Amino acid sequence: MSRQSNRTTDSKKMNSELFTLTYGALVTQLCKDYENDEEVNKQLDKMGYNIGVRLIEDFLARSSIGRCQDFRETADIIAKVAFKMYLGITPSVTNWSPGGDEFSLILENNPLADFVELPDNHSTLIYSNLLCGALRGALEMVQMAVDVKFAQDSLRGDNVTEIRMKFIKRIEENLPAGEE
Amino acid sequence: MSRQSNRTTDSKKMNSELFTLTYGALVTQLCKDYENDEEVNKQLDKMGYNIGVRLIEDFLARSSIGRCQDFRETADIIAKVAFKMYLGITPSVTNWSPGGDEFSLILENNPLADFVELPDNHSTLIYSNLLCGALRGALEMVQMAVDVKFAQDSLRGDNVTEIRMKFIKRIEENLPAGEE
Repeated sequence: MSRQSNRTTDSKKMNSELFTLTYGALVTQLCKDYENDEEVNKQLDKMGYNIGVRLIEDFLARSSIGRCQDFRETADIIAKVAFKMYLGITPSVTNWSPGGDEFSLILENNPLADFVELPDNHSTLIYSNLLCGALRGALEMVQMAVDVKFAQDSLRGDNVTEIRMKFIKRIEENLPAGEE
Repeated sequence: MSRQSNRTTDSKKMNSELFTLTYGALVTQLCKDYENDEEVNKQLDKMGYNIGVRLIEDFLARSSIGRCQDFRETADIIAKVAFKMYLGITPSVTNWSPGGDEFSLILENNPLADFVELPDNHSTLIYSNLLCGALRGALEMVQMAVDVKFAQDSLRGDNVTEIRMKFIKRIEENLPAGEE
């Protein structure tokens, strides 16, 4: 589906339950379509990536946030502005690596997974993997290559849900042809 | 995906854009999975039905609304409470049939379809058909059989989006065996 160019920042605030259930319908459909959890996880990541690539434009327009000074600032903006805006929650930012290139987002509640229980035959499903893809896609559009994955998932019995983000490199803009 | 029983009315308010894009991913996936628009429309209606059947419980808990006196009250609750709660918009209720058994919800903006353009090869796709299924499913759980369909759709060139709802019958509860 293509998108029209007459984007505005006029927004609708909504409760998360319809989104939660619609996301559940999407995951259920993918579980029907693909043979194993690994493939579903990949698809969710890919869909999320495509969503992130589009959502960043809306995010920048809506938040009026400019370029982050460093990865710490990026982490704060993601947790306090982006998650708040699009999921209505504010994860905590913790577990920084000594080099400052890795951190975790801890989600006390994950709206995508509200009221969900994984069936026994989907024990390796990364149910909310769309989020990882969305973060990766959005950050790529602001020239940051990051690795994003779930380190813990309350759906799989962990106490909290933890998304681990690792900075890989800054993507150079407008490289002269043949430079890379 | 099954749902846990520890439901609360703790809710997260979120902007609609992530939902809009996720819904787009769902429709796109269904367009890949099914041969024609008619099948996709059916699937969206079916998914919506399953969502509505679940969402009504959340709605009743959150809104503290009891049994409606008549179909006019139902129409108002749907437009002013339910749509506002789960989609952040308030459609207008119009075009009542003389018998009071049919009305239209007019959506000036449809969050599901924000920034969407239908490709030429999907001219018969009822993009937001999940909404019709959700309304039908939710109302069935409060003993109202209704017919719900899009009468106009701004995605297909109409000026507004119009959902037409027709009351069919009240579903009797606890009929003695063999009575119907």
